[in-house]
Amino acid sequence: MKMPPWPCCPKEIPHNEKLLSLKYESLDYDNSENQLFLEEERRMSFLGFKCLEISRWVICGLIGFLTGLIACCIDIAVENLAGVKYFVVKQNIEKFTEVGGLSISLILWAVLNAAFVMVGAIIVAFFEPGAAGSGIPQIKCYLNGVKIPRVVRLKTLVVKVCGVICSVAGGLAVGKEGPMIHSGAVVAAGVSQGRSTSLKKDFKIFEYFRRDTEKRDFVSAGAAAGVSAAFGAPVGGVLFSLEEGASFWNQMLTWRIFFASMISTFTLNFFLSIYNKKPGDLSSPGLINFGRFESDVSVCGLLGALFNILNYWLTIFRIRYVHRPCLQVMEAMLVGAVTATVSFAMIYFSNDCQPLGPDQSEDYPLQLFCADGEYNSMATAFFNTPERSVRSLFHNPPGSYNPLTLSLFTLTYFFLACWTYGLTVSAGVFIPSLLIGAAWGRLFGILLASITPDGSIWADPGKYALIGAAAQLGGIVRMTLSLTVIMVEATGNVTYGLPIMLVLLTAKIVGDYFVEGLYDIHIKLQSVPFLHLEAPATSHWLTAREVMSAPVTCFNRIEKVGTIVDVLSNTSTNHNGFPVVVPVCGLILRSQLIVLLKHKVFVELARSRLTQRKLQLKDFRDAYPRFPPIQSIHVSQDERECMMDLTEFMNPTPYTVPQVYTKVTYQPCLPIGALLNEALENLPGLCETLQIIVYVGYRDEVVNQKLC
Amino acid sequence: MKMPPWPCCPKEIPHNEKLLSLKYESLDYDNSENQLFLEEERRMSFLGFKCLEISRWVICGLIGFLTGLIACCIDIAVENLAGVKYFVVKQNIEKFTEVGGLSISLILWAVLNAAFVMVGAIIVAFFEPGAAGSGIPQIKCYLNGVKIPRVVRLKTLVVKVCGVICSVAGGLAVGKEGPMIHSGAVVAAGVSQGRSTSLKKDFKIFEYFRRDTEKRDFVSAGAAAGVSAAFGAPVGGVLFSLEEGASFWNQMLTWRIFFASMISTFTLNFFLSIYNKKPGDLSSPGLINFGRFESDVSVCGLLGALFNILNYWLTIFRIRYVHRPCLQVMEAMLVGAVTATVSFAMIYFSNDCQPLGPDQSEDYPLQLFCADGEYNSMATAFFNTPERSVRSLFHNPPGSYNPLTLSLFTLTYFFLACWTYGLTVSAGVFIPSLLIGAAWGRLFGILLASITPDGSIWADPGKYALIGAAAQLGGIVRMTLSLTVIMVEATGNVTYGLPIMLVLLTAKIVGDYFVEGLYDIHIKLQSVPFLHLEAPATSHWLTAREVMSAPVTCFNRIEKVGTIVDVLSNTSTNHNGFPVVVPVCGLILRSQLIVLLKHKVFVELARSRLTQRKLQLKDFRDAYPRFPPIQSIHVSQDERECMMDLTEFMNPTPYTVPQVYTKVTYQPCLPIGALLNEALENLPGLCETLQIIVYVGYRDEVVNQKLC
Repeated sequence: MKMPPWPCCPKEIPHNEKLLSLKYESLDYDNSENQLFLEEERRMSFLGFKCLEISRWVICGLIGFLTGLIACCIDIAVENLAGVKYFVVKQNIEKFTEVGGLSISLILWAVLNAAFVMVGAIIVAFFEPGAAGSGIPQIKCYLNGVKIPRVVRLKTLVVKVCGVICSVAGGLAVGKEGPMIHSGAVVAAGVSQGRSTSLKKDFKIFEYFRRDTEKRDFVSAGAAAGVSAAFGAPVGGVLFSLEEGASFWNQMLTWRIFFASMISTFTLNFFLSIYNKKPGDLSSPGLINFGRFESDVSVCGLLGALFNILNYWLTIFRIRYVHRPCLQVMEAMLVGAVTATVSFAMIYFSNDCQPLGPDQSEDYPLQLFCADGEYNSMATAFFNTPERSVRSLFHNPPGSYNPLTLSLFTLTYFFLACWTYGLTVSAGVFIPSLLIGAAWGRLFGILLASITPDGSIWADPGKYALIGAAAQLGGIVRMTLSLTVIMVEATGNVTYGLPIMLVLLTAKIVGDYFVEGLYDIHIKLQSVPFLHLEAPATSHWLTAREVMSAPVTCFNRIEKVGTIVDVLSNTSTNHNGFPVVVPVCGLILRSQLIVLLKHKVFVELARSRLTQRKLQLKDFRDAYPRFPPIQSIHVSQDERECMMDLTEFMNPTPYTVPQVYTKVTYQPCLPIGALLNEALENLPGLCETLQIIVYVGYRDEVVNQKLC
Repeated sequence: MKMPPWPCCPKEIPHNEKLLSLKYESLDYDNSENQLFLEEERRMSFLGFKCLEISRWVICGLIGFLTGLIACCIDIAVENLAGVKYFVVKQNIEKFTEVGGLSISLILWAVLNAAFVMVGAIIVAFFEPGAAGSGIPQIKCYLNGVKIPRVVRLKTLVVKVCGVICSVAGGLAVGKEGPMIHSGAVVAAGVSQGRSTSLKKDFKIFEYFRRDTEKRDFVSAGAAAGVSAAFGAPVGGVLFSLEEGASFWNQMLTWRIFFASMISTFTLNFFLSIYNKKPGDLSSPGLINFGRFESDVSVCGLLGALFNILNYWLTIFRIRYVHRPCLQVMEAMLVGAVTATVSFAMIYFSNDCQPLGPDQSEDYPLQLFCADGEYNSMATAFFNTPERSVRSLFHNPPGSYNPLTLSLFTLTYFFLACWTYGLTVSAGVFIPSLLIGAAWGRLFGILLASITPDGSIWADPGKYALIGAAAQLGGIVRMTLSLTVIMVEATGNVTYGLPIMLVLLTAKIVGDYFVEGLYDIHIKLQSVPFLHLEAPATSHWLTAREVMSAPVTCFNRIEKVGTIVDVLSNTSTNHNGFPVVVPVCGLILRSQLIVLLKHKVFVELARSRLTQRKLQLKDFRDAYPRFPPIQSIHVSQDERECMMDLTEFMNPTPYTVPQVYTKVTYQPCLPIGALLNEALENLPGLCETLQIIVYVGYRDEVVNQKLC
């Protein structure tokens, strides 16, 4: 039945970059408590509920274990590949330093880098574009309730793991930590379903968890396990999941997430200790270990904001002009080669020679034109994996770097990292940010020590490197609580907790003044209809009717099959949730209707068979999550005349908004899902407007209900 | 108007101890978005919202500052009083050890203890019973949405601070950490309102925050600041607030809470460093500082569960028989004297003499019958404030205690602490739990070292003390995430993070198998209608109509004043929220009606003055939070005939539950507030039943809406 048209809402001119994409659907985080569900619940014994609870813990344990294992593989692969590369290049440089002709070394280095990067870029660009970048924005969106296509597939995971190994080994200014978070989430989404749709293998376990609500909880746990494995920070992982993702907070869930995080760190440690031939030594907590600090406050998120602004422009450029896979691969290779060339040039023209210490802290010390027993200090920063560079900036004794080296390094690396993020390779932004911050933090420390007469308090520039690293990363990603804990856990020392917190808060406030965080920028650039936790301050006075369009597409409780098929096939009203209006309000989803149509659950009035075929929850779970499109379902002309009884299947308790201050008495409450459908349809998807629309309802629930 | 009666719901026999008390009201966490509110929002500029935001940060800063200051005062007072006491007693003991007649020392000690405790107990029992205990259960309830009378008053704060100083100085087996959390919460509730009702002083600031929703957020921040000051654990404080209290999660709020926590730790540090004459040295993070650990896993929550069971019985005994203030004071004094006597006896009969180290780690070493240059080891544990005892158990070198001493100490202290918690004094259970755990952890470590041939790995019993302390505390209070972080932050070392987590999880699982956590037990014993985050597993199939009673007490949109007064005065239907039913659903609160009646906002039909007196939000805010009872409002017979238009004041968007599966078509949605009212009225308050009732609605919102 159709409803009377509402007064039209104010239209706004769509802005190009801020347009929300209609290709994103929403996850159904609202449990459909229909009759089938209630019957199942009623049949289930207390023991059954206990079993479910235990399964949840088991799954979280598995997630932690597998995530840790993946982190371990990535770590070992990167170490070995990078080791071989640096060994070959170093040999070559040493050979040609004596006889002249270092340009050959440069070419060798550039070619090796480009080759690694090419492999990484090709698999991402041609096989699974969803594996590009760190994947953190995608996971944020997923946990926010937006269905990003292919984000938690097995193929994405495989490409991501191979891709990140290639890009780190290829010497790009990237880290391997961000992708771990995505990997953990994919593992979680896979394990919790007890089957793989890609591999066509169903283990017939965990069937109860085959719906978005349950899957979401496990994906939070997976993301936390990923952080935990990447930084050795289980508590930080939990906080990351909460701060960045979860709109849903629950004590039991937190404990499960915590459990997954712990298992993940533990697994990684255990296998790495075996690999390093020191079984049982669990002291290397994560993929990156800043080392233990054995021991005031500065600065701002200005650089972070600058980074974000530059990257924003660059990404817009990329979206407009670099959208063909071939171009993307070529750009990635170019960046790889340029990184090598710039690094080489910096090392070549640097004359900062440092004596080779007795403890041999450098892994690949380059002598070049330095005297015997000395090494090139610039090479410590450039001729190394970023993780090692960060560590040496934190820990090398005062005087290891001269200020000129550091400033040049900061400057070049800043632009390299900025160029690199957003390439079509799997890569994280954590480590490059830390590296930039560490470099200028150390620089700042050296300058401070040189201007203060009594340099004893300010003696250790490593502290400034740490603080700078925190500030830079905070300025770019804008996390505070979780980042503090991650940094504290990764450094293994609580002493710097307070300064790190202060710096992160400052960086956030300063940064927010100029531009949003990097992840939010990328979410916006991908036109994802992301919902923030806070409603716009002035949205209180907007009412439901002001943003609703007409006519509402809805069904009767007993509806003709033909009508349903027509509505579902209508591409202009491509909704995913429909109110069921007479005599009670309810909500039925497109996916449910598809399953019903597929199983031909019709009441054939003509043959006076009034009983519908009995369908069970299992049928819906089997079809989850890849429901076929309406076009693939054949409905004959006879069947079109049948009726379908939606009572059993609709959600009889959808979230509703009262139509405040309207004179309409027809329908005192309307499902908000339907409301949003219509609103989104009517307004051309302008971001701010949608925000306001959804906050007309109740904040949290709307996140669940964003059906578009 | 009255509604048709529903079929009666299943009655259950009320159980004595599980009865919910009707004396507790609920806080109104649901913002009443009525016309007045919307008009105010509409008038407010963007700048106005920014100002509010800044005020929130300023308030959080103030909360942190004041909480830190209070912690500082408590610390200094306790140190000095306890110092004087121990000095006097030690002098006395030394005098009488030589000449004989130690019974005089015993009496002196017991009398001193009893005197301190008496002062503490008298102020609590006679002036402010709400200040008894740690206050953590009360704060949990407050954040859960239950209005515990007098819990956030200034008087409570004063009594609490003085009380905790007396009880710690009086040598009871208590800590000063728990009360800090309550103190922080009171500070927050006071500061955020910009006035003191007790002191009759209104600063005319922060008026916007005079409602339960806003106050709740600040109280979370205050509790976090309290934890932060108590343990030097800002992150732990935030997590405590989230894990124990907040049903509401929000990024901005988290950051503000975090900010308050940081300021609190910082303030405490700053003033303590001045007091200790080392200004600028911010290394002593909290009230308790476990010292820095320079560096495997056991056990269970069995002891914790035993503690809780014993305390449960004891508390039931106290509720039944010890309810007069005089008796309570006498019991407290008795415990004080017994503590001294038992301690004395233990020290007297112990023959565990240890050589006095060169570093003089003991503050009050008692020689007693030991040889010169030796001290009595039992006295280290008993003749000391609990904080110092914990620290010496963690850090004293192996061999400082012999196993017999430790086992005797553990046993006696266990019973003392169990007896002490629940006395009518301000006292925390954190430190006693840690002390018990540390003692048996150390004992376990010593035993393990003695049975393993190569004792080198198991050499440091201090580690076991730490793990044991965590396990014991976890077993008693059942926190995991926040406690892990608190312990890690307090020890200043991340290395023990993983074992602590494992131990806490184990302790929780084992403990939960037997009995609930201590705080939950006390909440239940006080018959507070506390709502847990998880609904009972089998509550899905309960519908609203099954738990609703009839008739629903509700109003028309334009209602006769006489009717309103009668309904409010009716003690048998002592509701606090009423649905407004014709023609739209809305909800109006008792407190709102009281303000309306007080301001005589009537439509006098007789004199055909159809305009009501205009009321503003300010009037409601001024009356908050102590609304007068209906009896104090005089309404004349003429006025009773007037009408009152509720449209402007009612909340037009209350939470509602559709009446699923009922045949009633009269009212498709009923405000859940009213629903709960009636349900609570009808069922005689059985705990489990109420739980189920409220989860019929939507989980989170119900917490807001618990109007009884």
